[in-house]
Amino acid sequence: MQLTPGRWGDPAHPVDLPSAARDALKHLGVRRTAAEPVAPTDRPGLTEAQLSFLGQVVGDEHVASDLDSRWSHTRGYSTTDLLRFRAGDTSDLPDAVVYPASHDEVQAILTGSAAAGLAVVPYSGGTSVVGGLAPSRRFVTLDLRRLDQMVELDEVSRTATLQAGVRGPAAEALLAERGYTLGHFPQSYEGASIGGYAAARSSGQSSAGYGRFDQMVVGLTLATPRGTIELGRAPMSAAGPDLRQLVLGSEGAFGIITSVVVRIRPRPTERHFEGWRFESFDTGLAAVRRLAQDGPLPTVLRLSDEVETAVNLADPDVLGGGSGGGSGGVLAIIGFDGPYNQATADVLTAAGGKNLGAEPGETWRVGRYRAPYLRDPLLDEGALVETLETAAFWSRIPALKTAVTEALVGALGTTPPLVLCHISHVYETGASLYFTVICAQSDDPIEQWRTAKRAANQAIADAGGTISHHHGVGTDHRDAYATEIGPLAVESLRAVKHALDPDNVMNPAILLPES
Amino acid sequence: MQLTPGRWGDPAHPVDLPSAARDALKHLGVRRTAAEPVAPTDRPGLTEAQLSFLGQVVGDEHVASDLDSRWSHTRGYSTTDLLRFRAGDTSDLPDAVVYPASHDEVQAILTGSAAAGLAVVPYSGGTSVVGGLAPSRRFVTLDLRRLDQMVELDEVSRTATLQAGVRGPAAEALLAERGYTLGHFPQSYEGASIGGYAAARSSGQSSAGYGRFDQMVVGLTLATPRGTIELGRAPMSAAGPDLRQLVLGSEGAFGIITSVVVRIRPRPTERHFEGWRFESFDTGLAAVRRLAQDGPLPTVLRLSDEVETAVNLADPDVLGGGSGGGSGGVLAIIGFDGPYNQATADVLTAAGGKNLGAEPGETWRVGRYRAPYLRDPLLDEGALVETLETAAFWSRIPALKTAVTEALVGALGTTPPLVLCHISHVYETGASLYFTVICAQSDDPIEQWRTAKRAANQAIADAGGTISHHHGVGTDHRDAYATEIGPLAVESLRAVKHALDPDNVMNPAILLPES
Repeated sequence: MQLTPGRWGDPAHPVDLPSAARDALKHLGVRRTAAEPVAPTDRPGLTEAQLSFLGQVVGDEHVASDLDSRWSHTRGYSTTDLLRFRAGDTSDLPDAVVYPASHDEVQAILTGSAAAGLAVVPYSGGTSVVGGLAPSRRFVTLDLRRLDQMVELDEVSRTATLQAGVRGPAAEALLAERGYTLGHFPQSYEGASIGGYAAARSSGQSSAGYGRFDQMVVGLTLATPRGTIELGRAPMSAAGPDLRQLVLGSEGAFGIITSVVVRIRPRPTERHFEGWRFESFDTGLAAVRRLAQDGPLPTVLRLSDEVETAVNLADPDVLGGGSGGGSGGVLAIIGFDGPYNQATADVLTAAGGKNLGAEPGETWRVGRYRAPYLRDPLLDEGALVETLETAAFWSRIPALKTAVTEALVGALGTTPPLVLCHISHVYETGASLYFTVICAQSDDPIEQWRTAKRAANQAIADAGGTISHHHGVGTDHRDAYATEIGPLAVESLRAVKHALDPDNVMNPAILLPES
Repeated sequence: MQLTPGRWGDPAHPVDLPSAARDALKHLGVRRTAAEPVAPTDRPGLTEAQLSFLGQVVGDEHVASDLDSRWSHTRGYSTTDLLRFRAGDTSDLPDAVVYPASHDEVQAILTGSAAAGLAVVPYSGGTSVVGGLAPSRRFVTLDLRRLDQMVELDEVSRTATLQAGVRGPAAEALLAERGYTLGHFPQSYEGASIGGYAAARSSGQSSAGYGRFDQMVVGLTLATPRGTIELGRAPMSAAGPDLRQLVLGSEGAFGIITSVVVRIRPRPTERHFEGWRFESFDTGLAAVRRLAQDGPLPTVLRLSDEVETAVNLADPDVLGGGSGGGSGGVLAIIGFDGPYNQATADVLTAAGGKNLGAEPGETWRVGRYRAPYLRDPLLDEGALVETLETAAFWSRIPALKTAVTEALVGALGTTPPLVLCHISHVYETGASLYFTVICAQSDDPIEQWRTAKRAANQAIADAGGTISHHHGVGTDHRDAYATEIGPLAVESLRAVKHALDPDNVMNPAILLPES
């Protein structure tokens, strides 16, 4: 599957807005705007000498400098990215796209980039929603799609070595042939790939059962402008800092992860999903916390708040026409890879939950990657829709949720936005919060969202959350990130970058502000 | 409890060698040497100006420059450390010992150390067995024992903030008052402390149930010569690299961890331990791997090899006089914090295990911190005894075990040593291996062990293991560690050190070679 620039997901399977949603948009004051998408206009790309350098490494047929190739590698999929696509904004257009086929070709490009006067942006799935692909200066995009192999499968250790360009479904298909699964199913699953999962610390919808991607990685290979680093001689070690965890989340700022060794598990022979209803988000929150702290955890555990539950119930494509348990209350989804675990259900019942059966669960499963597809038709209708997420320790979750919601409502102007929220990743000591915002676009929707995002970021910082639980830093969170970790930690990361990338060719201005 | 310099553990509870062990030593060619311990002789310490600087920060009464205080903070507890103690070797004698009472006092010392011309070695439990307390030049030892408070307990998030100087038993006592446990029980539990657990990536005997210490830490505060870094706004985050994992394992080279936020759990109301017998180490290995990969894991899971089983069975103080199931075979110990889990036992039975009941398990539990006490009387008898450990992915474990054993036997000379081995920490993708070596001392036992250790390190590297699973790097593993992570990773760590400690006052020559 190839993503379409400026529109999410598989173009063969678009999602139409339900008529109920169209009606709801009117109540939000959403009015269709007249603006039609603007085609991008080209600008000069790389010099002949630069193209020649790249061609010598990968073969000329694997270097693309045409506008279509470059436009399709421009930015990621945040709402402001989509709005810039629609406006034909070429300010972040790569100057070329190069497709290496191996670690050695990646390494050769990075080794020679400074001399060739190139900055390099790694690109695997291209699904960043936080500005992870928009550096501050001209650059070549290094597309990893040809690194698409499973290099090794160790059945005794239950590990697989996967190259960075393997997409989510391809990884599952490669593993399924041998009876295994990775168990990593983020909402970007159809488009995102192994290298991006690692570089941006992805977390999938089955994280309660399989953990985050950074918890699955036991080894990795990093190509840097100064050479290659290989990490991970054992699952865990006391030999110094865990440098795997320094590379994971580095978003291409130190180099390019060309392959990872991941923990795999036997593919389940059965799966079960079901819906549960709680009287309120607070009641549901206590229930999911109980499962997170005392178990037994299911594989999937999600809890929508009242607003998200109500919005989803009104949408027959998402929740199956009112099967969520009647008016009021909140919906939780649980899923098991493997046998149904009655002990989990007993905990939910004891915590005040009502079992709604398999239908809401199956409906969620079928639509689990579809929600982002709704954004494009919503934008078409003139709505502003975007998501953001955070995480915190349990004791801070209620106040954090309130603070972010109030910040968004306060910043988005006179027509109150809809702010939906859910929990989809839990830990013994805390959880994530995922917000979806829908409102009418102002005359300048990009600035409108920027203002709201700044307010949300500040609210997250003030309420003790982290600036991102699973989307990453990119450029959108860069300043908030620097504040979160503090100036000495920023200097430490900058020192690592300087050691590995002294000429600042790697993904400049992503993760860390340029000094 | 105060450790005695040069002898392990609580002086009130020494361990005598069983007579069977004395007989066994004769077969190894062990002969009592005539050497008596040599008292250390003093040498000049800090200047008046340096002592005055320290006194101004912490109060003169919290700065010690007498020989006894300094000798008791000299080195750690490796066998070569003990042999140097016995020889009165003052080459690593600190020039003073300072006892700050707070993070701010630690920070003030580090901020002023370069100007005062001081290098600083952090000291909490003092139980390093890898040369973690022996830097290359004169220094003040910063003893964290007065940072002994539980600062906060968050019952909703199930986290506790513990200062670095809290010893293992004190941490459990503080948490027990509120109904919680940390669940961290390394063999050094009686002496080691929170700061050392974090700085050296400790792993405890209940790691199958509670995880490693680095997995328990969700937040930490680091004092560096350039200021303070606070990390951990959420259990997990996608906001950049996980910098907690860069500080954990840094062994004081970047700064001093003054407190950590750790995940806690409700204190169990029951515990069960039992022994199991397998025909061979290979059979037992398959069984523990099955539990590690498919569960359900107990809280404690240990598997001795044939040699360790036989040695332990001959020792009535360790295994209760032959309750290990008769001659031959290997002994496994499992333990549960909470109810006994029959499903775990069923997996062991299906894998060929024979349940030996509670007696061997209880015997192990009672003696779980006693094994290191045996080293001093063994040294007294003229034996050389030392331990080392590694970890690797499951598929490499058998060859790694063979390679390390052969390297030790080959290096330790004409009288074959006893090499005992067990697995005590398991993961889905691999496990640790812990070796104990007993043989006759040569005329130069320090050089004898150095040679053997070099051979073992090389065998570990060649067979794909990590140089340390839970002991850390110190000076003993420093060169092997640099080889393991490679020159670019070393440069990255050095860059971080330079950013935080530009004058190299922090634990010089520990973790990384001095440049």
